[in-house]
Parts: sequence; structure tokens; C-alpha cells
Amino acid sequence: MCELLGMSANVPTDICFSFSGLMQRGGKTGPHRDGWGIGFYEGRGCRLFHDPRASADSEVARLIRNYSIKSKIVISHVRKANRGKVCLENTHPFTRELWGMSWVFVHNGQLKGIKKHPVRFYRPIGTTDSKHAFCWMLDQIRSVFYEPPRTSEVLAGFIHNLAKRLDDLGVFNFLLSDSRNLYAYCSNKMCWLTRRAPFGKAQLIDEDMTVDFKEVTTPNDIVTVIATRPLTQNEKWTIMKRGTFEVFNDGIPLLQ
Amino acid sequence: MCELLGMSANVPTDICFSFSGLMQRGGKTGPHRDGWGIGFYEGRGCRLFHDPRASADSEVARLIRNYSIKSKIVISHVRKANRGKVCLENTHPFTRELWGMSWVFVHNGQLKGIKKHPVRFYRPIGTTDSKHAFCWMLDQIRSVFYEPPRTSEVLAGFIHNLAKRLDDLGVFNFLLSDSRNLYAYCSNKMCWLTRRAPFGKAQLIDEDMTVDFKEVTTPNDIVTVIATRPLTQNEKWTIMKRGTFEVFNDGIPLLQ
Repeated sequence: MCELLGMSANVPTDICFSFSGLMQRGGKTGPHRDGWGIGFYEGRGCRLFHDPRASADSEVARLIRNYSIKSKIVISHVRKANRGKVCLENTHPFTRELWGMSWVFVHNGQLKGIKKHPVRFYRPIGTTDSKHAFCWMLDQIRSVFYEPPRTSEVLAGFIHNLAKRLDDLGVFNFLLSDSRNLYAYCSNKMCWLTRRAPFGKAQLIDEDMTVDFKEVTTPNDIVTVIATRPLTQNEKWTIMKRGTFEVFNDGIPLLQ
Repeated sequence: MCELLGMSANVPTDICFSFSGLMQRGGKTGPHRDGWGIGFYEGRGCRLFHDPRASADSEVARLIRNYSIKSKIVISHVRKANRGKVCLENTHPFTRELWGMSWVFVHNGQLKGIKKHPVRFYRPIGTTDSKHAFCWMLDQIRSVFYEPPRTSEVLAGFIHNLAKRLDDLGVFNFLLSDSRNLYAYCSNKMCWLTRRAPFGKAQLIDEDMTVDFKEVTTPNDIVTVIATRPLTQNEKWTIMKRGTFEVFNDGIPLLQ
């Protein structure tokens, strides 16, 4: 299994604090030693970093933690391989282009029989269930919407339906972005919290690290963090229910 | 304009030495301050690093130089923006999937009227001539070859023809890889050299740095380096002629 981390914010924000917690789960406080990756959106482009090594020992992870890359949408993953060998091409996040936008995807879980779902436009590179699921979802979106649908709500509804269909095959916790919204589906574990004024202090669960968000934010900042398990011990995380779907835009839930 | 660098080798090899020279051209010994990027193939996957900042000042570039990532195919680019603003989505290398393989592309030059060439499967993210050219080439390949052609020679011939068509629009020096071969087209500047036993010393042009390849290779290693301008001052570079095309596999020219 794996751990997922996402962020949606209304201003470019760094994810150093949350990522510090997540990377410890990649071989130190968690068993997820089989690679990790992270994507930072900048406009319609997304800057991806992948490493098939454990994040707790990774030079690249140390760079990410210390070198503040600011973004409004971030997606990250640490991997414990179940299906598919440990190698770069099986390391999330996965990315593809649709409608001239970068789509980025990370998945936790296994999907029995997913490879029987045909793919046409997008073919998996690598052997994971996850990549096949991502390609199939994009294929479905593309075959129905040659151009983006008029509203985000229509697209969100379509993605939610695809998610439910794949969820029937096993466990399908995922984060997905099209460069505009961040989509989160909870198969059996996903939680989120929104930080906004008045900001307070937060203490990581996986490392002895505290941050006072008052000192690093402005009063209008809204930052939502989503993860498979809570990352901090003194904040109130919203635990998503099985089968639920959330869409965040600028840190705010879109479907209310 | 830009500078390009590629490598094709028969064993996973690091590119630290050549990259050290190239990154100096990104704002120090050259004017290419508008971003840089590099891709390292590992199997069918490719690990990409992008930075819209100057490589000479980049934290990520320092990491790449000091942290030896070994690969049989590497493609890199430092950018001086002519068309398209300085931002991540305009930063090479560009990548797309075709036939379940990662294709990676870098370009030097400008192509007048390229955006009139229609694209269907692959759409550009960003506004550069280069990305449009890459999407158009992949569209053409995909529409003729739904599956990979039987031989590398057929594919190479097809790519060479596409290259000549685009070259008529302006300047089209490029490096391209499909994870198996490295393709290099010379519009008006491209050169290469092959290092093999007996190995000797090499001295960078852009930095006071020498390496003795005898100490870092085994007798069977074959490593070809391709660049828009020679990177070393004491080795014999083959200067490619206008309109010529080379394909390297495991460091050896495929078309002979």
C-alpha cells in the first residue's frame, strides 16, 4: 500500500512541512520504502520529481524539503509495492496530457481485474494497476469530452462516477488534478483539513517538528491538505467516508 | 536560442561531467538563463527535472551535478526564450506517451507558422513552437503507426522525413528519444563524439574541470555525447552537416 498527500491553496504555498511528515513514512515511521514522487503545478505545467528509492534516504526528497517550491496544487506519494516491481516507471505520480493540460494522479490500493478494462488513447508505461486505472479514466473522459465540459461540476460528476466503477474492483483511494482542481476519492482512507485565519501551530505526528502558520501566511490564505492518514496530531482532520468524493479549488471544496 | 545535450550509452552512465559544462551556459558562460531541464531514462520510464530558473543558479542543477543518476539515454536543455514566456510549461524537455513508452524531446530554433500544423491526439501545454512541433510529430507517427513499426530503421526514416518538413519552417535542431533510441537532427548546429577504450582525459570548455575517463569506465563502455556545441576542448567532435540525422542505440550509430 501507499501513502498519498495533496494540497490545494488559493496562493502559491510550499508543502515543506507536510512533506517532512510524509517522507518519514517512506522507510522510517512507515514501511513505504519502494519509491516516492511529488508534482507541483505551476500554471498548466506540473513539475514532477520521482525517485525509486525510499524517501527517508533520498537526496531528492531532502532537496524538496529544504528548497521551498511554491504551488497552488501539489500531489505526492510514497510507495510500498504490492503489484508491479520497484522501478522508476512504476513510481507515482503519473502524468498525461488531455485538452492541453497536465493531469497528475496518485493511487493507494489494488484493483482486481483492472487490466481487462481496455485502453485506447492512453497506454500504461509500467505494470501497476494504478497506471492502468489512470489511463482508463483519461480514456473515458476523452472519449466523452473531446473538449473540456462547460462546468467543473459536470467534469467532477463524471470523474466521481468513474471512481465508483473502479472502486468496485478493490481499493481505490486516489488524488487527481487537471491543473485547475484537485480531486480526492476515498475508498477506505482519506482525510483533509483546511488551514485559514486565525492560523495556529501544528505538530507533525511522524517527526518532532512544529510550525506556527501565523508566521508564514497572510490573513487571506486558504490551504487545504489531504492525506491518507492525518499528518498532524493537534489539528482536527475531516475523515472522509467510504465512497465519497471531494473537489478542491483554491483550497475550498467545490461541491457543497 | 538554446543549448541541447544528449547521451546514449551501452551501460548506465552518469552525465555529471558534460552537464557541468552545459549548466554554465545557463547564465554564466552563455546567455541561456530562461530555464533548463533534463530527462534520465530508466527502462521505459524517464525521470525529468525542470527548473524555470537559470541553471547556473539552480539548486536542482547542483543536485543533478553532484548526485550521480545513471542512465543509458539522457536528454537536456538550457533555454534562452525567444517565443513563449519564461515559465515552467515552456521549459524543455517535453514528454508524451506513445505505444506505452515515454517520448522526450528538446529543440533549438524557431519554426515560422508551425502552429498552423494541426494537432489532434497530442496538444501542446504552453505556447512554444517547440512543443507544437513535438506534438505534431507524435501525431504524425501515431496516425501512421498505431503500433510500433517492425524495425527501428523504418521508424527512423519516418522521423527523418518529418524533421526535414519542419526544418523548412526555420531552425530545427532537436534531440528525441522513445526510450530505445536517441534521435538527433541537425538543422544548423549539432555535434557528437563517442568515448570508448582506450579512454583518456577530457577538459571542459565552460569550466575548469577535467576528468580521466579511464578511472570511471570499464573497457567495454561506449558512450556517445551529442550537443549543439562541443563541450570539451581536447577531444575530436564530429560536426553534423545541415539536414543530417543520426540515431544512436547503446552509444553506436544505428544507420550506417
